This record gives sequence, structure tokens and C-alpha cells, in this order.
Amino acid sequence: MKVSGQKKKQRVAGLMSGTSADGVDVAVVDVDGRDVNVLEFKTYRYPRSLRDKLLALCESEICDPAKVCHVNAVLGEVFGEAVIRLCSETKLPLESVDLIGSHGHTLYHQPAGKRYKGKTLGSTLQIGEPCIIAQRTGICTVADFRPRDMAVGGQGAPLVPYADHFLFSHPKKDRIVQNIGGIANLTWLSAGGTLDDVIAFDTGPGNMVIDAVVCHVTKGKMQFDRNGRMAGRGKVHNGLLKELLRDSYFRKHPPKSTGREWYGKIYVGQFLSRAKKLGLTADDMTATVTQLTSQTIAEAYRRFLPRLPEEVILCGGGARNATLVKMLQKELPAISITTTSEFGIEFDAKEAISFAILAYATIRGMCNNVPSATGAAQPVILGKIVPGR
Amino acid sequence: MKVSGQKKKQRVAGLMSGTSADGVDVAVVDVDGRDVNVLEFKTYRYPRSLRDKLLALCESEICDPAKVCHVNAVLGEVFGEAVIRLCSETKLPLESVDLIGSHGHTLYHQPAGKRYKGKTLGSTLQIGEPCIIAQRTGICTVADFRPRDMAVGGQGAPLVPYADHFLFSHPKKDRIVQNIGGIANLTWLSAGGTLDDVIAFDTGPGNMVIDAVVCHVTKGKMQFDRNGRMAGRGKVHNGLLKELLRDSYFRKHPPKSTGREWYGKIYVGQFLSRAKKLGLTADDMTATVTQLTSQTIAEAYRRFLPRLPEEVILCGGGARNATLVKMLQKELPAISITTTSEFGIEFDAKEAISFAILAYATIRGMCNNVPSATGAAQPVILGKIVPGR
Repeated sequence: MKVSGQKKKQRVAGLMSGTSADGVDVAVVDVDGRDVNVLEFKTYRYPRSLRDKLLALCESEICDPAKVCHVNAVLGEVFGEAVIRLCSETKLPLESVDLIGSHGHTLYHQPAGKRYKGKTLGSTLQIGEPCIIAQRTGICTVADFRPRDMAVGGQGAPLVPYADHFLFSHPKKDRIVQNIGGIANLTWLSAGGTLDDVIAFDTGPGNMVIDAVVCHVTKGKMQFDRNGRMAGRGKVHNGLLKELLRDSYFRKHPPKSTGREWYGKIYVGQFLSRAKKLGLTADDMTATVTQLTSQTIAEAYRRFLPRLPEEVILCGGGARNATLVKMLQKELPAISITTTSEFGIEFDAKEAISFAILAYATIRGMCNNVPSATGAAQPVILGKIVPGR
Repeated sequence: MKVSGQKKKQRVAGLMSGTSADGVDVAVVDVDGRDVNVLEFKTYRYPRSLRDKLLALCESEICDPAKVCHVNAVLGEVFGEAVIRLCSETKLPLESVDLIGSHGHTLYHQPAGKRYKGKTLGSTLQIGEPCIIAQRTGICTVADFRPRDMAVGGQGAPLVPYADHFLFSHPKKDRIVQNIGGIANLTWLSAGGTLDDVIAFDTGPGNMVIDAVVCHVTKGKMQFDRNGRMAGRGKVHNGLLKELLRDSYFRKHPPKSTGREWYGKIYVGQFLSRAKKLGLTADDMTATVTQLTSQTIAEAYRRFLPRLPEEVILCGGGARNATLVKMLQKELPAISITTTSEFGIEFDAKEAISFAILAYATIRGMCNNVPSATGAAQPVILGKIVPGR
């Protein structure tokens, strides 16, 4: 079976289609043992019609199986094309790519699931037909990483901590990879630690609340606080901050995860009405929710990790918010704060790179879930392997 | 990656869940190169509630993705259990099984598909999560055989002709494997021929029309013509038979396929009203439609195959209809007619055995679609491979 030879040094393309359904991220990396060298990265935006179809399928509670099957095939074509296009645009020979790892686009993910004969069966559905990716590119493709973790009782997520450990763990330094996306989540990597020692969970809101407040107070003129300028001008309201910190999520023990259902419209609406009553300016409001993000990140470290790390490596949009980073540094004065970019991993590329690494592990027969992060009962090899040509 | 070692001699379990949703067929075979030895076969019936759920999902034009995902997981459990149970009941060590091939249960199959950028994208959806099968059994599992054939323009079906060629092709004899199920279909295997020489198509009605006529004339007391007794007592009405033979399907060139939409209720209703008008007895009616099946099979050989074969190997329920077999022998006087049972392949087990053989081919890196049967543009390796434990 042509499964890319299973050699130690492999060139791997990673594909990721995020929940916003904007487009597909493609990264190409060279992996050799634990050494990873990022060669190329691009995002290819979806045509408007495809984006609309994807969003409609994700939001719908009923669906036409014909539509799901068709979009599964269309995304397979789009993903395959993306790899071919990236190679062609960057003059990377397509034949030099040994392997593809494709996360797919999540249509449905319900790890809590339903009971069957005393077992809880989680449900998940990623689309983007890997048989089409493998056929168009000629490259062995690993896809559908979540179900195997769920087969051993895991949540099928998060999967990125495996790649964090692969990329950033250090023999002598305790490190945290801190992603500040809409939600903020961390991966704890103890010095010289194995996958068993990894801790990963959502700390709470990342940019989600900040963005929503900025968007509201600027009447939609700004979608986010560029460079943290507004927060930098404002003053944190300690009383209101204290109220926000009372949120029970922050005290909940990991593994835990959160999302738009907690820190969405209702949450932000309540914050805005309290802030207006207290007479906060737009800048003060922004400063207060920015402090909320940085403080809850730092408090999560103090509460739930064995000790504070030597280094925090940031990624995600929040790493570009200078005020947020400054606040975080103030919370964690003794800790060196850097970003993944300093390790050659651009924020936007990190997820696609992660699925390249996950595929590499699968093909080399290495267990690549992180049971402590997903709640799985045991380590397993994730994914389904489709031979190349 | 543990993909069962890719050794030449492998013990393989095959799993098939038919459209009737009665249960899952499990076969265990030893495959060594081209030698196949069937060790065990059983069918495990689904609990009523699961059967109802499956049929409801298959018939529905809309579906709840949560339900599809849940039943995908449940069937994964059921398929895994079936392999474990067969091994335990027959004292076959589970660890002795190297590989599983699972067809899955078809929820949706629309090879005609929709256009996307000048390509026709077929759609297909088989459920029965292979990650769960592999995890419960610990055995490397190959599943989801159809999409790769469809990725090269094939219909994703039929897949069984590959196994027919594997099992029954002969270096010096032209053979036909003739399945007489509801629909009758053949696989032509020329002497010493390769997969390129295989011809496979539906010849027309198999037992479908006979069963419906018998059921009608006995007012439901008989579901089929046991042993062909009714047909054996009756007399073929040549005028009516001639009318039936005018059906355009019989003249259509292969590749072609047909189904319940052609030879269903309306077709049988028209036959019954003509037959009553002509004054045929119940036995005469049965004899006439039995002759229709046997004659259209024989005529398909004469019309669409390069030459008549030396041997016809029957399988399917029609092979148990003595009158049908006698009529077929009369149509093909010089040809030796046997059944797959004489080769150690029971009719009921043939599909499950076929998916064991398809999985074996996949893991050995052998192309296992039959382009002349599916209409695919090229040979490909079918399936997705899920590592064992």
C-alpha cells in the first residue's frame, strides 16, 4: 500500500477549514523526527456561493443528505486544488509532497452524544472528501481525526495540543502555548514532559468580548481594537472587572471548554448596560474587557497548572494586541512572553501546520491524541488514511 | 503505522449491511495471494429499534445530522461487536484476524451527482464508523470503498465484480458469475483475463418479478416460488413473453443497471392485468416470468459478451429455483452451470467475503475497482484505512 513510505523525513501539507467558512488554510512543512520547517502557507478564500452553502449547512438542524454529500465532494475538490495551487504558485514540486493532513470542515460536533448500551457515543461530522484530495493530488491523505478519539471516550477536541507539544516542548523549560483567538486556550508543556504531562483547556474569553464591545461602541466602524489602542487609552474599572471575574467558568476545573454560547451577545449586552450605568467611556470599557482576558489567562495558570512556566508563547489575533500583551506581562512579571512567529510559525498558519504534524504522526504509527486534553481513556492513532496514486 | 503488516497471507473479516437493514453479514476468510479459504460466516440481526432507525434514515429526504452521526457511531459498535462475536462463537482467536473490510450501510448513493467546475461530482454516504470498529476489535479496518471510484468518474458500484474476478477467474476457461437476486447481474471473466477484461452489468429482473407475481396469485401466502414448483407445473405463454421481451432495457448496451424503479409494482401490475386478460393460470404466469428471467440472462450473454462462456456459476436466491436453472440450462445447452457453493462460497456470504477481498487488495496496494463495470476513468485503490491498536 502506498502510504508515503513511512520514512522519517517527510514533506507534509496541512489543510484547515475554520468555522467562519472563509476559506481553506494550506501549509507545507518538512518534518524530520521532531524538526519542523515551515516552507509555505496561504489561505485560499472560498467563492461566496460555497461559503453561503457551508454556513447554511452548519446552521441548519435538518439537512438534505444529497446536499451534504455534494458539498463533501466539492470541498474535496477545493482542498485538492488548494494544495496543487500552493505548490504551483510557490514553485514547490507537487511530487515532493509526501503526505497531506486534512482536518476538513466541521458540520457537526456533539461529543456529549447519546447513550448506547452503557457507552456514551459522541457524534462528529467533518466534510471534504479525502478520496478526492488523494486522487487529484496523487498524495496519500490522512483525514477525519476526531472520531478515533471519541471512540475511546474523548471529546474529539482539542487536537492542536499534540502539535504544540511536538513543536514547542523544551527539554529544560516549562512552556505554555497561549492562543488568544475568539476564545483563549492554553497548552501547558512541562520541561522534558511527555504527552501525558500536557494540560490544555480554554481559559475563557479571548478577543470575542473585546471585539464585540469595540464593534458596539464604534457603531461597527471598527471590528477590533487595532494594536490595543483603545484599551491603551482607557482605564480599567476595577469594580466592574471584579463582577466579571465572578463568572463560575473561571473556577471550573479543567478539562473544560467554552465558546460563543457563554461569551456571546447576551454576555456582551449585560456588560454594556452595566458599563453605561457606571459611566465608563468607550476606551474604559475596552480596557476593562482587555484586562478581563489577560487576567483570566494569568489566573488560570496560577489556579490549574502545577507551576508557572518560564515562557509563554502567544499566538492568535490577541497576540497582536499590544495592550493585551502588556497587561498579561504585568500579570506575569517573571515570565518571558514571545510569540510563535519567533519560532517560524505564523499565527494564521498554526492550525494548518498542526494537521500536517498530526498526519505525520498517524503515518508513522504514533498515537496523536492528547488524552488529558480530550478526556480520552487512552492514547490512539487518529485519522483515516487514503492511499495516494 | 500498523496496517496489518501488508503480508501476503492475511486473515480478513468482511462486513456487509444490506439495503433491507435486516442485519450485518460477517465472513472470515484466509487470503494468500489468489487463494481464498472461507472459515466462518454468520448474519447478526439488528435489534428492531436499530432497523427502524436505519430504514427511516434511508427513506427520509431530509435528516437530522445529529441522528446520522449517532447511527454512524451505533453501527460502528454493532459491526465491531459482530466481528468479536463471530470469533468468540467459532473459537477463532480475534488476534488471528489481521484486517477488516467493511462496506458500511448505504444511506445515500447518487452517482449521477451535480456539476462542479465542469466535473460531475457523484455523492455517496456509507455509515458504520470504522474508527470504532478498529478500536473495539484492535484490527486495522478498511471502509468506505465507493468515493474513490467516484473521484475518477465511476458510479462507485458495482464493487463485487473485483471479488468475482479474484475468486472465480480461470486461466483457461471463460466463466460467468451470474447472481440472481431481486435483479439479475453478471460478471464476465474471460479465460486468463485481467480486470480490464471484466464485463459486469444487470441483465434485468432476477426474482423480483417472479416473487411479486407469486405473492399476488397466492394472496400473500407465498413470498416466492419455492424450488420453482409453480413455474415447473405451468406453461410459458409465448405471446405474452414476446411482449415482455420488447422492453428496451434488454437492448441497452452495458454498462447498465436497473432496479425496483423499473421492475416494481407498476410493471408487475401491468403484467398481471395482461395475463388475466389472456386467461393464464397462476402457474402459467409464474412459468412465463421465470422464463423471462432465464431468457433475458441468456440473451444478454449472446448480445453483449465477446462469446459464450464455458461455465456459468450461479449465486443468489434464483440459484435455488430449480425450474429457473433448468430453463437457463435449456437456453445455454452447451454450458456447464454450477453454483458458487461448489467453490466454497455460500450465496448469503458472498458480499461479506467480497469486502474482505477488497480490503485485502487495498492493504496490498492493488487497484480494486473495475472501471469497465463502474465507468471509472482509471483503476484506483478503494477505501480508507484505519489503523488497528
